[in-house]
Amino acid sequence: MPNPQLNAHGELAHLLSIDGLSRDILTRILDTASSFLEVSDRDVKKVPLLRGKSVFNLFFENSTRTRTTFEIAAKRLSADVINLDVARSSTAKGETLLDTIDNLVAMHADMFVVRHAASGAPYLIVDHLRRTGRSDVRVVNAGDGRHAHPTQGLLDMYTIRHYKKDFAHLTVAIVGDILHSRVARSDILALNTMGVAEVRAVGPQTLLPTALEKMGVRVCHDLHDGLRGCDVVIMLRLQNERMNGTLLPSAREYFKCYGLTPKTLALAKPDAIVMHPGPMNRGVEIASEVADGPQAVILPQVTFGIAVRMAVMSILAGN
Amino acid sequence: MPNPQLNAHGELAHLLSIDGLSRDILTRILDTASSFLEVSDRDVKKVPLLRGKSVFNLFFENSTRTRTTFEIAAKRLSADVINLDVARSSTAKGETLLDTIDNLVAMHADMFVVRHAASGAPYLIVDHLRRTGRSDVRVVNAGDGRHAHPTQGLLDMYTIRHYKKDFAHLTVAIVGDILHSRVARSDILALNTMGVAEVRAVGPQTLLPTALEKMGVRVCHDLHDGLRGCDVVIMLRLQNERMNGTLLPSAREYFKCYGLTPKTLALAKPDAIVMHPGPMNRGVEIASEVADGPQAVILPQVTFGIAVRMAVMSILAGN
Amino acid sequence: MPNPQLNAHGELAHLLSIDGLSRDILTRILDTASSFLEVSDRDVKKVPLLRGKSVFNLFFENSTRTRTTFEIAAKRLSADVINLDVARSSTAKGETLLDTIDNLVAMHADMFVVRHAASGAPYLIVDHLRRTGRSDVRVVNAGDGRHAHPTQGLLDMYTIRHYKKDFAHLTVAIVGDILHSRVARSDILALNTMGVAEVRAVGPQTLLPTALEKMGVRVCHDLHDGLRGCDVVIMLRLQNERMNGTLLPSAREYFKCYGLTPKTLALAKPDAIVMHPGPMNRGVEIASEVADGPQAVILPQVTFGIAVRMAVMSILAGN
Repeated sequence: MPNPQLNAHGELAHLLSIDGLSRDILTRILDTASSFLEVSDRDVKKVPLLRGKSVFNLFFENSTRTRTTFEIAAKRLSADVINLDVARSSTAKGETLLDTIDNLVAMHADMFVVRHAASGAPYLIVDHLRRTGRSDVRVVNAGDGRHAHPTQGLLDMYTIRHYKKDFAHLTVAIVGDILHSRVARSDILALNTMGVAEVRAVGPQTLLPTALEKMGVRVCHDLHDGLRGCDVVIMLRLQNERMNGTLLPSAREYFKCYGLTPKTLALAKPDAIVMHPGPMNRGVEIASEVADGPQAVILPQVTFGIAVRMAVMSILAGN
Repeated sequence: MPNPQLNAHGELAHLLSIDGLSRDILTRILDTASSFLEVSDRDVKKVPLLRGKSVFNLFFENSTRTRTTFEIAAKRLSADVINLDVARSSTAKGETLLDTIDNLVAMHADMFVVRHAASGAPYLIVDHLRRTGRSDVRVVNAGDGRHAHPTQGLLDMYTIRHYKKDFAHLTVAIVGDILHSRVARSDILALNTMGVAEVRAVGPQTLLPTALEKMGVRVCHDLHDGLRGCDVVIMLRLQNERMNGTLLPSAREYFKCYGLTPKTLALAKPDAIVMHPGPMNRGVEIASEVADGPQAVILPQVTFGIAVRMAVMSILAGN
Repeated sequence: MPNPQLNAHGELAHLLSIDGLSRDILTRILDTASSFLEVSDRDVKKVPLLRGKSVFNLFFENSTRTRTTFEIAAKRLSADVINLDVARSSTAKGETLLDTIDNLVAMHADMFVVRHAASGAPYLIVDHLRRTGRSDVRVVNAGDGRHAHPTQGLLDMYTIRHYKKDFAHLTVAIVGDILHSRVARSDILALNTMGVAEVRAVGPQTLLPTALEKMGVRVCHDLHDGLRGCDVVIMLRLQNERMNGTLLPSAREYFKCYGLTPKTLALAKPDAIVMHPGPMNRGVEIASEVADGPQAVILPQVTFGIAVRMAVMSILAGN
């Protein structure tokens, strides 16, 4: 089966997952983002690349933060952005997802930015567009279930490349609830594609998936083992709903075992960088001293995220 | 009493209802829409006709779909669009509808797109604007109670004209819950004005209003009678709240008696077109085989709807 | 401690409160607003002063009306406006206010328009921006707790200057729930700075703060005393939650004692103007005959409010 993200020439037509994208394609996105980074620093932060295009934010799962980053990216490309409050819209009236898509396509949509609680929902949309002969309408996956969050994976690669230049000799530790994290999945795939030396998954057994070794990941249940000598630490958000559930004794216990503190961070290389996809739970997965400390690059991640999303939208739109 | 939609020269100043509009006015809107259809197909889907104008979407009744069509239409005309979440705004703080209008007029609004659960609300606004000397602010009725939904009526006429060229010899069947449908009311008025040969209202007695014959409509309680030999079938959405109420035994019963299937559609002319204002209840008023079949023009209706709304806004703004 | 609103050259960098702003600064804002008033009357109501700037509306407390005025003002200055529905966003996920701010700054925000139920929240943001070296990002207080609503104070000064030309000999009565009103606080400070002859606070003892005399305000518990001979009457909105609470017997009682009627208004000078920040409770604090009467300038206040907000945003952005 061909990769649904690529067109017949092997070019990126939709962004659904890091899975199946070559190092060349990832590198091209990062290079394009690099050129957009400068736009956001200008006095007039706009380029006309998507002028007159209609970008629809379809957030079936609420996320003001992520929606905002796509909205800003699209507006800086001069697109018309339409935010659909899907939870209150026709789908709530019993319309199917694909009927909603057909309707928006009929309104001459150019791009859908889709977040959905169900893994695979953006694939379903891409497949439907293909079958109806409308693959010219582009789809960006802004997070689907536990599956993928490719723009987060890309901005994390941008951040690592920015601070570490070369991926080849890096050891990267991903710490926390990897089982439920689409960010972790996208990061692991991207790190492997970019060719890092070692990826470690660090967390309690209940929050790590079983197939990690098959993905070439070293599993560490002990935070000290996981952090020792690494170049990059990616902390994951602990979802509130896990904290007092059956998977974890309590947020306080969790912090004691897996929270990143100045002391545990000292086990990593002295120039190690600390990343987090946000929003942070201070005092749960990360201590404030680390979050606000000199090794944290959490806010630069956000800045790079806008540039990466501009790059993805611009490439998909054919620029 | 003069028609509140027309100015002293008989030109369209507001769009409140199909009622009272001449065939000439309807035809001019359809012709203007025709010229806008091309804009949505361009690479840069924008014309500057409403640049610097402030269009307010005042949806006192929630409808993401319809609001989106007006938002897209206004943005493609280069207007500034402000969506007011009226349910959570000052009216919720006890302010009257007309105080809200006065305030927005004082902010130099140019156009109001109004949806309201109360029949006549847009008329009240137009009347108030006239009395306060501000008839230069335009009003578009985006659906008021059971009364009217004139842009839907217009886009339905556009669709019929597109596929059937001439209205003169057509038989049009409107099927379903006509009693509660502002779409049906607007369609019947528009079809009569455009001079079709016959309009049929098809549905159970509990869902048909009593005054239909006075509107020149042939009433059919049997779907087979209603569809036989017709050129156009307009299916109406069955509101969820009717399905298990006292008006209907059940959605399943309804589909059995009034649902459009390949078999019942075969009673219409072979080249009959099938329309639906959306969102569809598949398996309730329409079978998927019909909705996705070759006679359905439901998605072109959506495309034409954007062009028709651009035409209405552009004409009201004086272009 | 230096005034956090001013930069090292004593120029306005943020607008947090009328407190600490000189008559020169207030006058400059009003003069700038005067030049923008003309923009809203143009056919194309836009100037490119904020083109490519990103303005974030951060309304932690819901107010569709005020948010709309800032959205319109920013759009007429050609800014990109992003409305954050903060109640449903990351703060709801446990993120701190300052982490939210840091994230938006990292997205290259240029200006925050902030409404918050907590007095001082916009100060906290300004202080944080200073400590993180990002004072180039501007903050406008759109209402914080009971503390301040400076753009309302400014538009009220604009209105008074428009109708009365000179502040020097004016007597201004502010009537109603002054205790809970950030509008009243901002108005009193602005009136004192502009040098009016007398400010009167009129209301029942339970709705007047104790420190009024220290602010140079004459306290009147009797409406007749309060209105007699004054040039300007500023009516305050009675919040619904006060009406049947312990502070007031009932809305009806309140209207009898403190409602502005044609009869009580007759005690003021014949050319006195009547102002109200909106939304009005007709029949509670103000009779409809007065609200719609020839002395009311309530709708011009709204018009001036757009021009004043354009002026503030434009000055803060360095134009």
